[in-house]
Amino acid sequence: MPTYTPPTEDIQFVLQDVLGSSSADIPGYDELEPDFTAAVLDEAGKISAELLAPLNATGDAEGCSFDNGVVRTPKGYPEAYEQVRQGGWIGLDADPDYGGQGMPYLLHTAVGEMFVSANMAFNMYWGLTHGAISAIQVHGSEEQKALYLPRMIDGTWSGTMNLTEPQCGTDLGLIRTRAEPQDDGTYRITGTKIWISAGEHDLTENIVHLVLARIPGGPEGTKGISLFIVPKFLPDADGKPGQRNGVACAGLEHKMGLHSNATCVMSYDGATGFLVGEAHKGMRAMFTMMNEARLGVGLQGYAQGVVAYQNALAWAQERLQGRALGAPANPGGPADSIMVHPDVRRNLMHQKSFVEGARAFTFWGAQLIDRAHRGGDARAEALISLLTPVIKGFLTDKGFETTVLAQQTLGGTGFTRAAGIEQFVRDARITMIYEGTNGIQSLDLVGRKLPQDGGRAIMAFFDIIKGFIKENEGDAALKAEFLDPLEAASKDLQAAAMYFMEQGMTSPANALAGSYDFMHLFGHVCLGYMWARMARASRAALADGRGNPAFHEAKLVTGRYYMLRQLPATALHLARITSGAETVMALAPEDF
Amino acid sequence: MPTYTPPTEDIQFVLQDVLGSSSADIPGYDELEPDFTAAVLDEAGKISAELLAPLNATGDAEGCSFDNGVVRTPKGYPEAYEQVRQGGWIGLDADPDYGGQGMPYLLHTAVGEMFVSANMAFNMYWGLTHGAISAIQVHGSEEQKALYLPRMIDGTWSGTMNLTEPQCGTDLGLIRTRAEPQDDGTYRITGTKIWISAGEHDLTENIVHLVLARIPGGPEGTKGISLFIVPKFLPDADGKPGQRNGVACAGLEHKMGLHSNATCVMSYDGATGFLVGEAHKGMRAMFTMMNEARLGVGLQGYAQGVVAYQNALAWAQERLQGRALGAPANPGGPADSIMVHPDVRRNLMHQKSFVEGARAFTFWGAQLIDRAHRGGDARAEALISLLTPVIKGFLTDKGFETTVLAQQTLGGTGFTRAAGIEQFVRDARITMIYEGTNGIQSLDLVGRKLPQDGGRAIMAFFDIIKGFIKENEGDAALKAEFLDPLEAASKDLQAAAMYFMEQGMTSPANALAGSYDFMHLFGHVCLGYMWARMARASRAALADGRGNPAFHEAKLVTGRYYMLRQLPATALHLARITSGAETVMALAPEDF
Repeated sequence: MPTYTPPTEDIQFVLQDVLGSSSADIPGYDELEPDFTAAVLDEAGKISAELLAPLNATGDAEGCSFDNGVVRTPKGYPEAYEQVRQGGWIGLDADPDYGGQGMPYLLHTAVGEMFVSANMAFNMYWGLTHGAISAIQVHGSEEQKALYLPRMIDGTWSGTMNLTEPQCGTDLGLIRTRAEPQDDGTYRITGTKIWISAGEHDLTENIVHLVLARIPGGPEGTKGISLFIVPKFLPDADGKPGQRNGVACAGLEHKMGLHSNATCVMSYDGATGFLVGEAHKGMRAMFTMMNEARLGVGLQGYAQGVVAYQNALAWAQERLQGRALGAPANPGGPADSIMVHPDVRRNLMHQKSFVEGARAFTFWGAQLIDRAHRGGDARAEALISLLTPVIKGFLTDKGFETTVLAQQTLGGTGFTRAAGIEQFVRDARITMIYEGTNGIQSLDLVGRKLPQDGGRAIMAFFDIIKGFIKENEGDAALKAEFLDPLEAASKDLQAAAMYFMEQGMTSPANALAGSYDFMHLFGHVCLGYMWARMARASRAALADGRGNPAFHEAKLVTGRYYMLRQLPATALHLARITSGAETVMALAPEDF
Repeated sequence: MPTYTPPTEDIQFVLQDVLGSSSADIPGYDELEPDFTAAVLDEAGKISAELLAPLNATGDAEGCSFDNGVVRTPKGYPEAYEQVRQGGWIGLDADPDYGGQGMPYLLHTAVGEMFVSANMAFNMYWGLTHGAISAIQVHGSEEQKALYLPRMIDGTWSGTMNLTEPQCGTDLGLIRTRAEPQDDGTYRITGTKIWISAGEHDLTENIVHLVLARIPGGPEGTKGISLFIVPKFLPDADGKPGQRNGVACAGLEHKMGLHSNATCVMSYDGATGFLVGEAHKGMRAMFTMMNEARLGVGLQGYAQGVVAYQNALAWAQERLQGRALGAPANPGGPADSIMVHPDVRRNLMHQKSFVEGARAFTFWGAQLIDRAHRGGDARAEALISLLTPVIKGFLTDKGFETTVLAQQTLGGTGFTRAAGIEQFVRDARITMIYEGTNGIQSLDLVGRKLPQDGGRAIMAFFDIIKGFIKENEGDAALKAEFLDPLEAASKDLQAAAMYFMEQGMTSPANALAGSYDFMHLFGHVCLGYMWARMARASRAALADGRGNPAFHEAKLVTGRYYMLRQLPATALHLARITSGAETVMALAPEDF
């Protein structure tokens, strides 16, 4: 059975040494003093390792049961949920006016990494509530906020997102679910939604569905879609769950992974719905949830990599097989630990250098969100908008790849259910698909985010990289080992962006055929940048005699590994991009 | 539920147009006339698509049952096995003196691709028999051959390989299973073996275990290991299964995939064993089985990619979502098929260009084996020995990746059990692990095969590439689109080989830290070479007006895609290799 060790020292390093959170000029960040964040992380780590991680494998094996509309979560889940709920974790960063703790989104993200590494499927029961809270907070009426937010923030009610229908995945313009206006101002919602995570379960007294539907007579396509609140139980005058609404779970999907999270087919049969925001403006409201959800999914991707890597490392340190080159490392034993073999280490360093870089990148993204939302910084808003598809697409592709590499470290044992590492592979797999497949992320990046405002956001990104390089180029070791490779990779990204700008007008297919590689190229540059920042922080700590020297030396080695062995992938992605769309588009569909 | 369409035209193209099999100067190849191979492929395709493919998902869902030493295969497996057995497929390339059909190994390989694409787990019940037949054929006594081969070749008995023990995976020097010599010349075998594929089942009347064990008093390590035949039932005087031997299945592994193939813990409790070949020379005999098995596993890797790609393509052709750039492709429908989207096509072309290249590479490898074994060609023997770890390691890594890409094409549907494509991912995953993990393949490649005979085999490989380029450089289109990129990639491979030769003596860690990348670099050059050969063949066919022009045009487009978008990976692998071992080896094991 796998174990999970909260990487508190690593998380603190990113929060404090790298992002300088407690001194960052963002409203509320003054609370993020090192002692405070350490205490929060300790507590979250304890819950993750002791309460949630042990339920991960048992929950996967048991799965959810479905009987006549009723969904039961696996043994131990209701009790664990109640403990998390009572701990106030669900409302950690929510509005204090509605019972939240008002902490920065960054802290929610740091805590979330631990919960997700420990048990991704469990965490999704309330992870989506978080997005639903944001949507109601931003787009709901005062009455809706007063009624729903306190109950969702304290976790007694949970939330869902209902977008997909059988004929309509990515292309939301094809939505058919109808919302008929009633005389009392409510709507009758009728239709079928699929892939609804946590659509039905036994953890909360009510479930608040946020549903996209079409009001008859509205415009066709996505311009005629509205957002509705459809509670499982209609709140009575006291705000208590009252009459059962006309919505029910019609069945569960049987999936490759994420077994203990109920993926529901939801059937709406004249259910009472309450319009959120303006009619026909539902897409905008849903995007509020989706952008946050996408950062959360990127986090899921690398967080599965974190726990998979931990278990691969533990195996490698204990497994005795073969001998080191030269003198044996374990002369008294029958063999050396497999840590002596260069290829085993290459594999582990690949995992390690990715997950640590990914953590820094995600936390930086969360800090940008705080800067945008709490600090009202439009530049940060534009930047995180650009980076969101990169965080989602790149970190889930590489996070999944990391779980596969970790599984490989265990050899045959890694293929057995008993070892448990294969669950991380199966669970991580969905992160590349949901909240918009990674292909859609790349389309969002190249088709929408990149050209927005004449490319101002990516120019700002390049300015940040250039500024960082300029500011630190006096440190010769940093320059040679980190800044020079970062500059080279950044030039590949610039060349790709330039290619798209040239092609975008005349041959959009050339841009779109390169979108996926652009997303990866961008992701590598971001991780290269984060590694340069981490290296600077560790060099400063070593110079000042702060912290644990072995920790900081290890960071520098891991960072150099990334720069030497992962970052050069930018050139390959650029070569693919500039090869254009000709071979991609040439075949007639029937000639494939 | 997924479907499988036998790619007969593609297989015939490789056998006939690319490898020129019927005119190749190899004993027995004169039988491989196009009409004959087409007839064999048609028949094998029918069995694959109609008999085996429908059992793939049901077998996965049901799995094998274990009760008190008895293993039952899923519903339909015994009947299907009997049909395959009666068809003579198991002995297709076996020695006619023992009832085989004496066909080239190449034909066995071509047929095997279909069977494996249709149902990999089923096929393994007799796939390992094939390796056991080879080991007995090459190393067994005349009596052993006469007793075992006819029954294994006609499939009434099956075979297994028993290497791994709990403490001993890759490092076979740690084997503890004992073989005590008896007065009658037999041995008493005692010990536990794990990961024994098809170690117990209900398909054959007897199971012939080939077991590595240690005769007391022999040398330590791998030099003291001997190979034994240990039948489940001891043959009586008539060669009929007689007394039950002291070997039993102690349990089944519960695995991520390959559910319908029984992976057994085998317990040997003083079982009667018969020495194969010389005492203490068991490793050599086992290698006879392993090399062939490794090519077979490489085939499994890409064959899972083949069927996954077919299902991804079928989905993409039918799924309506979004609109084409410019004019709609399906103006009468609610949306266009997703084949209009450049990123969907990029994904499909990636899959297609890999599996078609991999097929050609594997078949070329099988032809080299025939050239070596049937033609006594030592140069071919050295070359296939060098290429075997590349076929196994590269094709299984990329084959698995292909199943993941195919799953991605289906979006959320790809994550459901019902769609069935996730089974290909779970089944393909094991191919990167068994028969020596891919890390071990890379070690075999760089540590053993590359330096053998002063690097003569890789020099021969470079001569083949150079010769091919020189021979065809008069064709300007072929040169620009295929030969020039092949030459560039080949230079990367030469630079890497040169780096290893320089480092091998002074810093072996530098070579070993690059072994995995070298295996991939080598694989890309091989696929680049195969695509150049396929392009030449298709250009010749088009020029001569032979065959289906759309088929050959599609081959040229697909090949150009490979050269533009996959082959450039060689530069990345070279960069990683020449970065050396420093960052890989720097951390103390406890500082990870």
